[in-house]
Amino acid sequence: MGRKIVVIGGVACGPKAACRVKRLDPSAEVVIVEKGEEISYGACGLPFYLEGEVPDVKDLTTTPVGVVRDVNFFKAVKGVDVLLNTEAVSIDRKKKEVTVRNVKDGAEEALPYDKLVIATGSSPVRPPIPGIDLEGIHCLKTLSDGVELKKAMEQAPGKNAVVVGAGLIGLECLEPLLKAGFNVHVVEKLPFALPALLDEEMAVPLMKHITSKGVMLHCGDGVASFEGDGRVQRVVTEKTEIAADLVLLAIGFRPNAGIAKDAGIDTGRMGIKVDAHLRTSDPDIYAGGDCVESYNLVTGRSIYAPMGSTANKHGRIIGDNLAGWNSTFLGVCGTGVCNILGFNVARTGITERDARNEGMEVLTSLCPAPDKPHYMKGSKLIHMKMVAEKHTGRLLGVQILGPGEVLSRIDTAAALLKSGATIDDCFETDMAYAPPFSPALDNLIVAANVIQNKRDGLVRAYTPAEVKEKLDRGEDFVFLDVRTPKELEQMRLPYENVIHIPLGMVRKKAQELPRDKEIICLCKISLRGYEAARILEAEGFNPGKVWLLDGGIVAWPYEKIVNM
Amino acid sequence: MGRKIVVIGGVACGPKAACRVKRLDPSAEVVIVEKGEEISYGACGLPFYLEGEVPDVKDLTTTPVGVVRDVNFFKAVKGVDVLLNTEAVSIDRKKKEVTVRNVKDGAEEALPYDKLVIATGSSPVRPPIPGIDLEGIHCLKTLSDGVELKKAMEQAPGKNAVVVGAGLIGLECLEPLLKAGFNVHVVEKLPFALPALLDEEMAVPLMKHITSKGVMLHCGDGVASFEGDGRVQRVVTEKTEIAADLVLLAIGFRPNAGIAKDAGIDTGRMGIKVDAHLRTSDPDIYAGGDCVESYNLVTGRSIYAPMGSTANKHGRIIGDNLAGWNSTFLGVCGTGVCNILGFNVARTGITERDARNEGMEVLTSLCPAPDKPHYMKGSKLIHMKMVAEKHTGRLLGVQILGPGEVLSRIDTAAALLKSGATIDDCFETDMAYAPPFSPALDNLIVAANVIQNKRDGLVRAYTPAEVKEKLDRGEDFVFLDVRTPKELEQMRLPYENVIHIPLGMVRKKAQELPRDKEIICLCKISLRGYEAARILEAEGFNPGKVWLLDGGIVAWPYEKIVNM
Repeated sequence: MGRKIVVIGGVACGPKAACRVKRLDPSAEVVIVEKGEEISYGACGLPFYLEGEVPDVKDLTTTPVGVVRDVNFFKAVKGVDVLLNTEAVSIDRKKKEVTVRNVKDGAEEALPYDKLVIATGSSPVRPPIPGIDLEGIHCLKTLSDGVELKKAMEQAPGKNAVVVGAGLIGLECLEPLLKAGFNVHVVEKLPFALPALLDEEMAVPLMKHITSKGVMLHCGDGVASFEGDGRVQRVVTEKTEIAADLVLLAIGFRPNAGIAKDAGIDTGRMGIKVDAHLRTSDPDIYAGGDCVESYNLVTGRSIYAPMGSTANKHGRIIGDNLAGWNSTFLGVCGTGVCNILGFNVARTGITERDARNEGMEVLTSLCPAPDKPHYMKGSKLIHMKMVAEKHTGRLLGVQILGPGEVLSRIDTAAALLKSGATIDDCFETDMAYAPPFSPALDNLIVAANVIQNKRDGLVRAYTPAEVKEKLDRGEDFVFLDVRTPKELEQMRLPYENVIHIPLGMVRKKAQELPRDKEIICLCKISLRGYEAARILEAEGFNPGKVWLLDGGIVAWPYEKIVNM
Repeated sequence: MGRKIVVIGGVACGPKAACRVKRLDPSAEVVIVEKGEEISYGACGLPFYLEGEVPDVKDLTTTPVGVVRDVNFFKAVKGVDVLLNTEAVSIDRKKKEVTVRNVKDGAEEALPYDKLVIATGSSPVRPPIPGIDLEGIHCLKTLSDGVELKKAMEQAPGKNAVVVGAGLIGLECLEPLLKAGFNVHVVEKLPFALPALLDEEMAVPLMKHITSKGVMLHCGDGVASFEGDGRVQRVVTEKTEIAADLVLLAIGFRPNAGIAKDAGIDTGRMGIKVDAHLRTSDPDIYAGGDCVESYNLVTGRSIYAPMGSTANKHGRIIGDNLAGWNSTFLGVCGTGVCNILGFNVARTGITERDARNEGMEVLTSLCPAPDKPHYMKGSKLIHMKMVAEKHTGRLLGVQILGPGEVLSRIDTAAALLKSGATIDDCFETDMAYAPPFSPALDNLIVAANVIQNKRDGLVRAYTPAEVKEKLDRGEDFVFLDVRTPKELEQMRLPYENVIHIPLGMVRKKAQELPRDKEIICLCKISLRGYEAARILEAEGFNPGKVWLLDGGIVAWPYEKIVNM
């Protein structure tokens, strides 16, 4: 008889671990215990099922050739037993038994194990807000959540939807809600959208985009209560009241670590604690996927980073180790990507805010630019922010957003982060170039160049937020806008202290500029602004007085006059 | 007075070096000598100008805001002097002078230098084939080549075009030629398309795609002569004769290293030799861009890798060093990308053929799969081949092609190659995942997994070429095709030794299979084939007899019966 392996949880990590160990050790007896009706499904596809890109929810449970991954499939193909509608209720580590309960009839039994895998996933956060149990308030996590929400969208008594939480799931559901004809409000407690992914200055273009699509964004506002008579009719926030026929609660997820904690296994606020072999504090018990704490390779700290990609990798590593191999999973970089109403958003590593919270000194660059050579008709804007450690030049993180291509840049940055690369390594990366794909110097390389220039003392730059503070404090400085007159017509800063000299005239007219005030140079994206700053220094201006506005007028998230 | 810096060549590396040193050292006197009419243009955009994606050739010479980068621009904005229509004819390294000649009036003068930059680029190869000087035979390198070719396409006496060379430029020009209504033939001396980028098995799907668009491909055939009366009318190859109203000669490029060689500077077959500082054998002379030999970070050998991206990076590094900094450029990974008639092709690192030529033992994987989760309507196929060093697991190269997304995977692989990553590092890379972008386990990660499985002895696989040889030798083995009956109807191998057992039945029916013959398992892409092989081993089949067909039937480039 082979060793008995029990796997708790049948969505991503669990089935992967079960099938992997069975491939490596066919003698193992492997059983998966899953409390739901379905096994091994693509939960991340749910927003696209709601929207119609995925025609049938069953598509999320099939293999690429259309075979349903059900109990029979797992038995026949994988040699793995599956118990559906079966909840694991407790672990007896001394006896090495898991007690499971049939959720339909309540019958309990004890499953003995030699090795156990906990892959219990996560649950949506449901804070104890008054009225939270009213009908019409939905979460989106499981297939049946998806089916219920889709039905609720079709049957809602009216067309007012409120999304609570401007995180990934909440924003990914804007498209299906708008497509279904809802008026959509988003309530987010933190002051900006995707607060876990982005720095505030990077969230601004995203928020403008979302608003431009007709969504009402209420950032920096929390839900006080849900009101209604049996079913939800209003969301009362700290600042306002919003009619609601449907509510999507998308505040985040919490690891399902209860069963592990109850069994005396080490857990933390961010889930079950595991080592690099994904072994818990009990050497016979492994854990992976959304229920465990991850290790952030950039900060060296524990984080909670529930991702379908990581869960699948965890499954493979656990499968290896169950079979007696010695495989490790060192950690994650916090990579994420999403498309919000046609606007791409991606992040890897840590934000500037994260880095400063870690006490790090950083250099950043802010580069809005086309994703392909500007002469290609199909080129589209992307905003990129890069964060590096000041003293070492080590890359810490990248944020990218806009209508243009983000995936190649974020994945490249993730690979660089994994290797502990510096911005110099980033510059040297031999990224692919051809006009239908990318500029000769990729946006990622330009972002690294800007940080190199700052590190090497070629330019001093203010972030938009720093300049805004100067304006608010009434500081005496001038903007030097070096764009062409035509560009100026299209978009300009609405302040009185703006001097306009097109770049080609800066050498000639430098003498007209004040030498006693700070000069903050800018152009569209601040590449010409940088040229202007270098010219002024060459013309003898005090370098300490010559500054650059990071990201130029395109990245300026505050007031501007636009006539496009 | 500042130091005198002369830069020979005004396309990419030269202007970049000139402007960079001027920004770092405003006192420098910098002059660019360019033999053409134009400076600082996007030569890589020429195929897209021919095709119409770039409306005006002038767009290739403007900044992103539409300012023309002409002599005045360089003077006013960059502080750099430009001599157009001026050819550098010789370098006197003792006197530190460059002799230049005005190509219009032949007047010569000597330009003294403290530091010299050679950025003379490359020239199209024009072999001494009989008739090569006939009218109607074009190359594509400079802006004026582009303008002439576009005019020639409009004015050609007929609609027969022959492209000589199935390299990047030749294939990128298929789209403009087809759009302009030409019947297009491609003649390539080597046996397959993009021979410098791909292994033959990877070139097959590309060649099928090109042929499906109506292009006649003549691979493994060389041009014997061009014939015609003043203007070209026929291309006579070793095997056939093709009517031609227009010929595009796209055999490749050679570094313009003559002026350096004549001056006694070290040069090789692949261009001017430079160190990591891009300094030539003369410490006062730098060189960069298409005229220099590159260093391949994967093989540790010199290669010729003329790329606009590299040329721009070279310019920055040379600018730094001209200013007295100490910057290095270590090398390239041979990354390239292109879109051929809607089919993407990308490569980084080295091919299996390259690796074997280096005497390396390798492991490879061949993974055709959707670029997004299969349940997303927008998912498209990509073929990926990964090559790793057998003993160390070091990643050596990746080739990707198909209608789907290739850029993110190739750039990620390039970043991994740069860091000397192994396939285990590749697996652990925290690539971005969301259904509109990528599968939970990215294609690159799956490709690494397949190599891990081979390395770890979980599966023995044959490449399609190896299996084809077995067939041709008449070896006695069986194919085990484990796809569903429906899949079988759509596409199948036309051989008599194919046994069909759907994967779900393999455990039950294993006993029906021969134990004395080799069994080569396959499915659509060979993931289920791998499952089948594991099942057979678990059922006691001799592991040495159980094999996998790499890449499944999708990657099988030979005979197959298709009813789609």
